[in-house]
Amino acid sequence: MNWIAVLGTVAACCTTLSFLPQAIKTIKNKDTSAISAAMYTLFTIGTLLWLLYGIYSKNFPVILANAVTFALASVILFYKFRYK
Amino acid sequence: MNWIAVLGTVAACCTTLSFLPQAIKTIKNKDTSAISAAMYTLFTIGTLLWLLYGIYSKNFPVILANAVTFALASVILFYKFRYK
Repeated sequence: MNWIAVLGTVAACCTTLSFLPQAIKTIKNKDTSAISAAMYTLFTIGTLLWLLYGIYSKNFPVILANAVTFALASVILFYKFRYK
Repeated sequence: MNWIAVLGTVAACCTTLSFLPQAIKTIKNKDTSAISAAMYTLFTIGTLLWLLYGIYSKNFPVILANAVTFALASVILFYKFRYK
């Protein structure tokens, strides 16, 4: 793996895992007042489309990253509508 | 452009533009209580690394999407630390 591939992998880990502390915070506090419903609706749809893109183009890193992000974003979106 | 490329483009538009309503909401209300500082720190670093990845691998869609997302995430991160 060359250094550009390493850079992409580190970038993907950062953007994917970043949703974990947000999901934990949201589950813990049940406070979603400052979170945008429009953002998480659009973002969750977007990660689902990325996941389909990864499946159809047989790109495993895209599938993995977006499966994780889709799951975390879905949790945050659920809490946004459950605890308005 | 085949339909898999169209799917990827729509996915990229959704995940990139989703940060716009969050940035608008944050600027308008100055309420960042429910937003995770860890998420936006990690996410902003991640989009910056994606941007560098796009520049070094000469991938224009990656550059464009991550330049926009980096700018929007930076605004939200700034407000998170400015209005705790």
